[in-house]
Amino acid sequence: MGYFSDLPTVRYEGPESRNPLAFRYYQPDRLVLGKPMVEHLRPAVCYWHSFCWPGSDVFGPGTFTRPWLTLGDGLDAAKAKADDAFDFFQKLTIPYFAFHDVDAVSLGNNLTEARSNLDAIADYFAQKMQQTGVKLLWGTANLFSHPRYQAGGATNPDPAIFAYAAGQVRNMLEVTHRLGGKNYVLWGGREGYDTLLNTDMRQELDQLGRFLNLVVEHKHKIGFKGTILIEPKPCEPTKHQYDFDAATVHALLAKYGLLGEVKLNLEVNHATLAGHSFEHEVAYALGYGLLGSVDLNRGDPQNGWDTDQFQNDIQETTLVLYRLLHAGGLDTGGFNFDAKVRRQSIDAVDMLHGHVGGLDLLARALLNAEALLADGQLPGFVANRYAGWKSGPGADILAGKLSLVEIADQAVAAPVPHPVSGRQEMLENLVQRFI
Amino acid sequence: MGYFSDLPTVRYEGPESRNPLAFRYYQPDRLVLGKPMVEHLRPAVCYWHSFCWPGSDVFGPGTFTRPWLTLGDGLDAAKAKADDAFDFFQKLTIPYFAFHDVDAVSLGNNLTEARSNLDAIADYFAQKMQQTGVKLLWGTANLFSHPRYQAGGATNPDPAIFAYAAGQVRNMLEVTHRLGGKNYVLWGGREGYDTLLNTDMRQELDQLGRFLNLVVEHKHKIGFKGTILIEPKPCEPTKHQYDFDAATVHALLAKYGLLGEVKLNLEVNHATLAGHSFEHEVAYALGYGLLGSVDLNRGDPQNGWDTDQFQNDIQETTLVLYRLLHAGGLDTGGFNFDAKVRRQSIDAVDMLHGHVGGLDLLARALLNAEALLADGQLPGFVANRYAGWKSGPGADILAGKLSLVEIADQAVAAPVPHPVSGRQEMLENLVQRFI
Amino acid sequence: MGYFSDLPTVRYEGPESRNPLAFRYYQPDRLVLGKPMVEHLRPAVCYWHSFCWPGSDVFGPGTFTRPWLTLGDGLDAAKAKADDAFDFFQKLTIPYFAFHDVDAVSLGNNLTEARSNLDAIADYFAQKMQQTGVKLLWGTANLFSHPRYQAGGATNPDPAIFAYAAGQVRNMLEVTHRLGGKNYVLWGGREGYDTLLNTDMRQELDQLGRFLNLVVEHKHKIGFKGTILIEPKPCEPTKHQYDFDAATVHALLAKYGLLGEVKLNLEVNHATLAGHSFEHEVAYALGYGLLGSVDLNRGDPQNGWDTDQFQNDIQETTLVLYRLLHAGGLDTGGFNFDAKVRRQSIDAVDMLHGHVGGLDLLARALLNAEALLADGQLPGFVANRYAGWKSGPGADILAGKLSLVEIADQAVAAPVPHPVSGRQEMLENLVQRFI
Amino acid sequence: MGYFSDLPTVRYEGPESRNPLAFRYYQPDRLVLGKPMVEHLRPAVCYWHSFCWPGSDVFGPGTFTRPWLTLGDGLDAAKAKADDAFDFFQKLTIPYFAFHDVDAVSLGNNLTEARSNLDAIADYFAQKMQQTGVKLLWGTANLFSHPRYQAGGATNPDPAIFAYAAGQVRNMLEVTHRLGGKNYVLWGGREGYDTLLNTDMRQELDQLGRFLNLVVEHKHKIGFKGTILIEPKPCEPTKHQYDFDAATVHALLAKYGLLGEVKLNLEVNHATLAGHSFEHEVAYALGYGLLGSVDLNRGDPQNGWDTDQFQNDIQETTLVLYRLLHAGGLDTGGFNFDAKVRRQSIDAVDMLHGHVGGLDLLARALLNAEALLADGQLPGFVANRYAGWKSGPGADILAGKLSLVEIADQAVAAPVPHPVSGRQEMLENLVQRFI
Repeated sequence: MGYFSDLPTVRYEGPESRNPLAFRYYQPDRLVLGKPMVEHLRPAVCYWHSFCWPGSDVFGPGTFTRPWLTLGDGLDAAKAKADDAFDFFQKLTIPYFAFHDVDAVSLGNNLTEARSNLDAIADYFAQKMQQTGVKLLWGTANLFSHPRYQAGGATNPDPAIFAYAAGQVRNMLEVTHRLGGKNYVLWGGREGYDTLLNTDMRQELDQLGRFLNLVVEHKHKIGFKGTILIEPKPCEPTKHQYDFDAATVHALLAKYGLLGEVKLNLEVNHATLAGHSFEHEVAYALGYGLLGSVDLNRGDPQNGWDTDQFQNDIQETTLVLYRLLHAGGLDTGGFNFDAKVRRQSIDAVDMLHGHVGGLDLLARALLNAEALLADGQLPGFVANRYAGWKSGPGADILAGKLSLVEIADQAVAAPVPHPVSGRQEMLENLVQRFI
Repeated sequence: MGYFSDLPTVRYEGPESRNPLAFRYYQPDRLVLGKPMVEHLRPAVCYWHSFCWPGSDVFGPGTFTRPWLTLGDGLDAAKAKADDAFDFFQKLTIPYFAFHDVDAVSLGNNLTEARSNLDAIADYFAQKMQQTGVKLLWGTANLFSHPRYQAGGATNPDPAIFAYAAGQVRNMLEVTHRLGGKNYVLWGGREGYDTLLNTDMRQELDQLGRFLNLVVEHKHKIGFKGTILIEPKPCEPTKHQYDFDAATVHALLAKYGLLGEVKLNLEVNHATLAGHSFEHEVAYALGYGLLGSVDLNRGDPQNGWDTDQFQNDIQETTLVLYRLLHAGGLDTGGFNFDAKVRRQSIDAVDMLHGHVGGLDLLARALLNAEALLADGQLPGFVANRYAGWKSGPGADILAGKLSLVEIADQAVAAPVPHPVSGRQEMLENLVQRFI
Repeated sequence: MGYFSDLPTVRYEGPESRNPLAFRYYQPDRLVLGKPMVEHLRPAVCYWHSFCWPGSDVFGPGTFTRPWLTLGDGLDAAKAKADDAFDFFQKLTIPYFAFHDVDAVSLGNNLTEARSNLDAIADYFAQKMQQTGVKLLWGTANLFSHPRYQAGGATNPDPAIFAYAAGQVRNMLEVTHRLGGKNYVLWGGREGYDTLLNTDMRQELDQLGRFLNLVVEHKHKIGFKGTILIEPKPCEPTKHQYDFDAATVHALLAKYGLLGEVKLNLEVNHATLAGHSFEHEVAYALGYGLLGSVDLNRGDPQNGWDTDQFQNDIQETTLVLYRLLHAGGLDTGGFNFDAKVRRQSIDAVDMLHGHVGGLDLLARALLNAEALLADGQLPGFVANRYAGWKSGPGADILAGKLSLVEIADQAVAAPVPHPVSGRQEMLENLVQRFI
Repeated sequence: MGYFSDLPTVRYEGPESRNPLAFRYYQPDRLVLGKPMVEHLRPAVCYWHSFCWPGSDVFGPGTFTRPWLTLGDGLDAAKAKADDAFDFFQKLTIPYFAFHDVDAVSLGNNLTEARSNLDAIADYFAQKMQQTGVKLLWGTANLFSHPRYQAGGATNPDPAIFAYAAGQVRNMLEVTHRLGGKNYVLWGGREGYDTLLNTDMRQELDQLGRFLNLVVEHKHKIGFKGTILIEPKPCEPTKHQYDFDAATVHALLAKYGLLGEVKLNLEVNHATLAGHSFEHEVAYALGYGLLGSVDLNRGDPQNGWDTDQFQNDIQETTLVLYRLLHAGGLDTGGFNFDAKVRRQSIDAVDMLHGHVGGLDLLARALLNAEALLADGQLPGFVANRYAGWKSGPGADILAGKLSLVEIADQAVAAPVPHPVSGRQEMLENLVQRFI
């Protein structure tokens, strides 16, 4: 009898359903712009929040009574957790999951044990994946929880710890490859600083650049076809994290020769902690071909830490999906629910409520986005607004055909230009029609 | 009789002076690490806050009764303002100033008038500079106040407005060159967006990249030897400004081929609005050779807009000066007091209080920084912390001599590494000794 | 020919309408819980943002070409503005407006002129109100824009300025009474401080308490039956404003004997600047019977100043209306659109777009709230969660029948209590069904 | 051999000392305004951060190897911890400490065990206090860590949990009384909400009001002479905490009849999380006679959670001490170092560095404040600024002798008043002279 045995399998029942454990919008096979919904979204459950976190916070221990959390560090405990996890995936009918090495199994006391334990649980995962059809959206190595990483992994002042981190990533990248993972993610939880007083920032960034290059080289060596992703976050647990936001990572990738090799895994709550709307981060990444995948969640607008709640802002999610569809969609990426139920939501069914709500919101947003695109007014307005740059003097300027003096002289000769309305309120009202 | 006639000329009186209009630390010729204080700092008064702003805010009109503000838009008014401004510079014994084109004179109704008016006031400035010895730290063009720039200058959807902006920058860059300006600054007040709904971000960034290249090309063409600077700011008046922070501008410069040509003019209040300590922005810029100049001021820690107050945090300023001295100092840049007296500080003497305090804090911070460097413990701690990367496996890793597998295999074979204390509290206490 | 002559009168066309200048939800006479929509909402246009603000911001002058803005300070200009304003109200079919004394007319150079000018425009307003049926939701005096109020009105260090403010409020309270205003509002734009260094906070709060009492006494003396309201805001233009948020004003009212006499006019953007959700402020005020009226708008989640945008968050507005309906609705208050079109929205039609969107969102939220209440699950869940306090030991505790020792002894004897799930995700999903 | 055996006892060596483990300013017996420094400050070590927290954060487990953390839950472990703690107090020569019930000892499985265990460790504390002379600044009960308190203690929807909390507070209040504690603190870590959707705010506030009254009644019953204190905090771990800030607690105390019985324990980091300067919170509390005690620490200006770092801002601390001295100082309160060394500061000596720096900064601030008061310019400026309210019409207004009409009529008859400078910059410069 598994932990989730009493829960129903969630089914699509349509927008009018009042069943809280049914989907009202999520229909994996429904075609959206000619492609099944599930291929647009590749939704994934994250292993850490749902199967590893005990409901603790800084002010109190865990509140959850998940049976697998009491079984110790052995492989049996890891398998028991996996059994329940895959059972949950099936109740949810979700096609993907994602995990850190340490989520799946204890890494033991050294890299030899780590590899051995990881290989063992990977074999078990492979079986479960085979049995259930659930696939791996991405894998990642946890280089921030163990005390050895207190000052970072790749950016640690101690080269021996950099090397240990390299060992962990090598293992997990190979396991991700073996399990058919679509992507491999690096999140630099402690790749940053707690105080500048003891920090050589340029030194640490050079280390980080080298580390990423090593990962990319190894990916090619082993033939991994997935995408290498960095997940920006501005801070927490560090005071400052080097992969602050999309633009900061853009600079990092440019500086260390990684453009074209590494893309971004953008998270909603990380965007807002960095002082950006999530839509902004998505627009920036799409603008430069950097968007790889999404960690869907939300923060609390009044709280200054990563709350990782299930997304429930249909307007924001609609606009993000609209941008994504407009740009042609994700390549190997998907939408990972990097979200956790609240510490007070202690029952098994709460986990299902959280994910059902998240999935349904995502699906509804996709349908809204499809309608916005089909309507055509929003993309048409924007295209028309910049029409002056597509030909004539505008095009010549952008093409570099004119010098500053030539442009200035044209402006002297031309009539003084006048501003036109940006029509923000009209466009905001237009969007309301689709949510 | 000028507006400042009743004010004394400010003199150095030493740390024990209780005269509020004396310097306690600022001695321009005092040698610091073998170079006169004034050459380290190149302090400057900004024209806009002190001579153009009337004491207005969003909730009320000006409170200041500066005589030149009531004289209209003509050249005579501009000259009267300049007379008082240079008088103030002399009372303050400050060696530099900075201005926007529109600060100096009205730009009239078109680019022809703009050039003519600007040339006329530049001639007058040249005379005043000759008479007083005051020099120009930098010039800049205001591409954000006039309604035509409501949707930006370089990033405007209308190429004709881009061209108008090009005309204005051409004029002001040439005037800056003529007046011997040490630098030329671009601040993109409305180079951003109010809503993403009507915005093509990549299009606008391409325009901005082209604009910057045009400026750089023209600089070389006219033989201007100063540095071209961008001043990052995250937002205000726009929702989002494209030159958000140092790292974002780094990405921009890398993308559009401007590294080595354009540096940063960092402002304290802009750093904090972007979610960074000012020390962070300075460390980032210094790390990559991007620091050009500084706009010294401060924000209010509880207010979310640009308050542009005179800096009064001796600890922060000391640590910034320490980093700067440690890195070898500024090249063509200086410290511009981009600060304004409060709306309630309506008297002429308040302007002097503000600048005297700012200058003295800056000088005191420089002396503190010199002592911190001389003490050697802080830089020594940091150098020692990263010593493992200077030779052996650390150096090999950074040099790219080892693959991920080789590094990982070394880690498997080596003893498990252990963390060491970061000694943050000890270092924080150490700094207290120098402030 | 008025400024708005070319604009259509906005009509209800139903949810399927694609006409951007039609209402899809706003039907004033539609019954909601037995009361016409318009009586629930009492929607109002604010005079200041739409008819006085020229489209300026801190970084640039006005962008709007409203004809009445160029007519000077005379009564004719004030009347011309009123003509267009009431024309706009009619195009919008909105039943209420709100204004400051200085919005309506110039107050001249002293209180005698102020009274005379205000009386003259009030006569004109009375005519227009009579002709159009538009009513006054509330009036207020501007005690923050004029330089004399740079250090506050009621909290000014100078008693003569307090007295001047008293004169202005006396005039405007009497005019509000004469025009049949439903409420009178005090917003303390500069009732706060710029720096604590020159401030005696308790002294200033005592002044503020006295001022409010004077207003309440005068209200009764003249027989004004409307509600006196304070509008909390945490800061801007001051560093700190004394009416920071609902709880702070609650303390002020309790301290100075004003409970029962003064209620709150809550604004969305002020709530978020104070670090609260708007829903929080409404819940607090409703909890203590303090909610008077609402200034409906929104801030920008990424910007730290008052952006006063038209509300477009249907989820937040739905939940606020739900709380309001659940608590029995507003008494004399309404929903004032304290919102302005963006500086780039320079056309007359943009003003209409803004208000149509705001009105429609408000109406849609009201209908959603009605459905949430009718569904009953949300209020039922909450009532049930606290059921233990309605009888037995819980009721005895609240009633003060048990001492700490008695309660503790009961707890020693009772079984150890266990937590139950808070069901946050389930409730969040439930709300999604109604938006 | 204790954990701290190798550390020296910290001694005063004067401002010129370069010994990082010496005091440069802290001299307990030095007279400041006629009272020994130690009686002004009553500095205290907090038990939780230094002896209970293992160096964990949300992203990783503990990094500290304190021996007592590995000894389990028994009384022996609690005594071993106490041995090292009191040894540390003596090395630091600090006269006070503070603790939660759960910091001292495990509370077992029910209230009977809790009382028994607490009494046993209290006996041991009493011995140690007798031996060392270290005194108790305050005690408090932890009503937020145990899962039973996931939805709060006093504000829990379940009266049985309220009762359990009452039992815990009864025990700890009596133990605090027995140990001669100077104060008793209530911090409502989970007295707030995670979501308004499942919350009846007024109900919960009524519960909180009742709870506080029960505590006050019991205090009097047992003859405890210390002060009951509430410690405001805006959020974390909850989304919103009911004791948000000083003004919010002021409203709570007024509403539930607790003024004169309950005062505030203000914490720096909680002030800044609430959007206030710490100086503001102190000024508000002093203004209304509400300041009880201080939790001295600091947050990180760029991080939105409680970082509880050792204070190192001499300017802020100086101004707080200045206000305190000006108002006559604390009554039963003191300065508790509610601060923890960073997770990377893993050595015993780091704990000493943190506290030595904190103590020394506090002492230096006290001496600075004494000098600021003696100088007299700052308090004199403020007193003079409000002089108009001390006699004549100002005094009459405040005394309630004049009606709104009378005041307004006086203003009509009087000359129009003019603003005067607030001299903010001059005052800021003045403060610089004392830090």
